[in-house]
Amino acid sequence: MGDNILDITPVKYIDGRMIILDQTKLPCETSYLVLENAEQVWDAIHKLRVRGAPAIGIAAAYGVCVGMAGSAASTFADFLDEFRRAKAYLSTARPTAVNLFWALDRMEKRLLSVGISDGGFSADAMKTALLEEAEAIRLEDEQVCRRIGENALTLLRPGMGILTHCNAGTIATAKYGTALSAIYLGQERGYAFKVFADETRPLLQGARLTAWELQQAGVDVTLICDNMASIVMKNGWIDAVVVGCDRVAANGDTANKIGTSGVAILARAYGIPFYVHAPVSTIDMSTATGADIHIELRDGAEISDMWYEKSMAPSGIKTYNPAFDVTDAEYITAIITERGIARPPYSISLAAIMEGAADDI
Amino acid sequence: MGDNILDITPVKYIDGRMIILDQTKLPCETSYLVLENAEQVWDAIHKLRVRGAPAIGIAAAYGVCVGMAGSAASTFADFLDEFRRAKAYLSTARPTAVNLFWALDRMEKRLLSVGISDGGFSADAMKTALLEEAEAIRLEDEQVCRRIGENALTLLRPGMGILTHCNAGTIATAKYGTALSAIYLGQERGYAFKVFADETRPLLQGARLTAWELQQAGVDVTLICDNMASIVMKNGWIDAVVVGCDRVAANGDTANKIGTSGVAILARAYGIPFYVHAPVSTIDMSTATGADIHIELRDGAEISDMWYEKSMAPSGIKTYNPAFDVTDAEYITAIITERGIARPPYSISLAAIMEGAADDI
Repeated sequence: MGDNILDITPVKYIDGRMIILDQTKLPCETSYLVLENAEQVWDAIHKLRVRGAPAIGIAAAYGVCVGMAGSAASTFADFLDEFRRAKAYLSTARPTAVNLFWALDRMEKRLLSVGISDGGFSADAMKTALLEEAEAIRLEDEQVCRRIGENALTLLRPGMGILTHCNAGTIATAKYGTALSAIYLGQERGYAFKVFADETRPLLQGARLTAWELQQAGVDVTLICDNMASIVMKNGWIDAVVVGCDRVAANGDTANKIGTSGVAILARAYGIPFYVHAPVSTIDMSTATGADIHIELRDGAEISDMWYEKSMAPSGIKTYNPAFDVTDAEYITAIITERGIARPPYSISLAAIMEGAADDI
Repeated sequence: MGDNILDITPVKYIDGRMIILDQTKLPCETSYLVLENAEQVWDAIHKLRVRGAPAIGIAAAYGVCVGMAGSAASTFADFLDEFRRAKAYLSTARPTAVNLFWALDRMEKRLLSVGISDGGFSADAMKTALLEEAEAIRLEDEQVCRRIGENALTLLRPGMGILTHCNAGTIATAKYGTALSAIYLGQERGYAFKVFADETRPLLQGARLTAWELQQAGVDVTLICDNMASIVMKNGWIDAVVVGCDRVAANGDTANKIGTSGVAILARAYGIPFYVHAPVSTIDMSTATGADIHIELRDGAEISDMWYEKSMAPSGIKTYNPAFDVTDAEYITAIITERGIARPPYSISLAAIMEGAADDI
C-alpha cells in the first residue's frame, strides 16, 4: 500500500527530460524511466511503457518538448522545420493512437500562433510556449478526469460494491483516470467502496494495472477472472459497474475493451446499473451507431502464448482476438462526462452534452 | 490433425497395466504413461494426469485391477483384505472426486458377489471378475456419452456455430465426452459445425484440452477468451451453446465450471439456445435448487500466478476464485441426458427422466 497512487504521475517533465512510470514493469516493479531525447520517447510510446489514450497524448506533447529542448535554431523557419521533423517522427510511434496525433497537432498550432504573433525570433520563447501547451494538455486532462469523477460520485453511495473492467485508471491519464476517478475521489472521502477488478484477458490490464493502482491507493480491491463477473453479481456483491470507453457513437453505443458488452448484459440481467465514463473527446457524433465502429483484430498469440511459460493452446489453433467490443446503448444506464451525465435516449442527451449543456441530462 | 481423437483412449488396460493419456502434458505433447502398480495409479490421479469425473472413475476401477494383478492370495478372505487395502489407498488420491469412490464401491460389490457365489477360491477368477466390472464401467460410460450425443444431435443442424465452455470432452470420459459428444457424432456425419471454445480461466481447460481435442478431430474450432463470448454471439456466429455439468438440482439449476452462468445469460440476451449435457448420474433430486449446491473456492494463485512466467497481479492482491457457478434453470433451454431431453419445467421433466421415462419430455 504505502504511497498514495494519486501522487504517482505516469508522465512528467523536468528540465528538458521526461520521466515516465514504466507500465510494462507493473505489477512486479514500480520503476521510472528518464527520457532524454526523442528516440527514447518514441521507444517508450512504441513499447507501451506509456499507455492509455490521454497519457499517450501527454507523453507526445512533452516528448516534442524533449526533442526540441536542445534546438539551436536561429530563425522561426528553422525551428518549425525541426519541430515538424520531431512531430513526424513521434507520430510513427503508435500509428493507431488518435490522441498522439491530436496532441502533436495541438502543439503545432500553438507554435504557429506564437511564430506569427511574435516579432523577433527567440528559440527559448518557442520552447517555453511548447512547454506551456504540453502543461495545458496535461492539466486539462486532469480536470476532465476529476469532473467525471465528481459527476459519477453523485450516482454512488458509501460502501457500494463496484465492478470494473480493463484499466481506465490514473496511470492511463494525467491523474484520477476515467472509470476509476469516482473510486479515488470516494476513497479520499472515506466511501469504503468494495471494488472487483476483472483481470481482462488477453492482456490482463485489470490484473496488472487496475488491481495494482487500487491496491496502492488502499482501496478494498478483489481480483477476479472475467468469467466470474456473473457469480459476484449473483452473490449480491455488486451495486454498480463502471467502465471507461474508447469511442461513444451518437446513439450511445460504446466501444470499449473486449468483454465490456458481456459485463453490461450481465449487469442488466442482475438489475445492476452500468455506467460508462466518457470524456467529451471520446464522443463521436459523426459515428451514427456502434455498427460503424471498426473493431481492431489483434495477434492470436496474445491468447495462446503471451505471458505463459509455454504455449497454452495447441500449435496452429485458430483464434479470434478482437481488441474491443461494442456495448449497445440499451444496456447503458448513464454516460458520465466532464460536462454532466447523459441518460437515454442518448441521441438527445449526447447532442446536448456536445452543445455544452451541462449537468444531468 | 492426423489421428482421429476418438481413437485416443484416455484410460485403457492391457495385461495387468493401465495406459493413460497424460493430460498435464497437453496441448504441447501427446504422451502416454504406462502404470504398473497402485502407487503409479495413485500418483497419476493425484496429479490430474487423468481428469474428468467419468475418466477418474474408470481409472480407479482399472487401477484396482492393476493393484490386484500380482495378488498371490490363496483364500477369499486374504484376497478381499488385499483388495480393501488397495481400495482405501486409491480413495485418497483425490478426496473430492465422487466418481472415484463410486467406482471403487462398485468394484467391491462385484467382488463380494463373486466371493459369495463362488465355491472353490480362485484368485484368477477374482481378477477376471474385477476386470469385467472395470470394463463394464468404461463401456457404460461410453454408451451414456454416445446416447447424450445422439439426443443432442436432434437439436442441431449441419453448419451451425456452437460455443462451448471448459472441457467436457472425450478425454474426460470413456469416449465422446458429454458436451462435445454431439460435435463428434456430427463430425462423423459431415455436419461441419463451426465451434468456438472459451479458453476457460483460470485453468484454461478450453485452450489446453477442448481446443486440442477438436483440432485433433479435424473440427473447425476457434479459440477465444471467455470475455469474447458476447461478441461472437453478437456477430451472429453462434447458433447454440453446449456445456457439460457437475451437478443438476431437482429444479434444473445446474452447477458447472465457473463462467457457465454468464454464458447462459448472454445466450438468452442474444436469443441463442443454451443446452446442458447431463448424464443421469449428475442429476441430484435430493438437491432442491442451486442454492443448496456448495461452491468450492480455490487458491487465488491460480488467477494471479499459475501458468505465467512471472506474477501477473500485484503481490498480496485479494482474489476470489470459485471453481463453479450455478446457472439458473430459467436460462437453460434443455437438459440432454442419455434417457432423453428434459425441458422446462424441470421439476417435472427431470423427475420423469429419473423414473426412467424417455425421449423428449
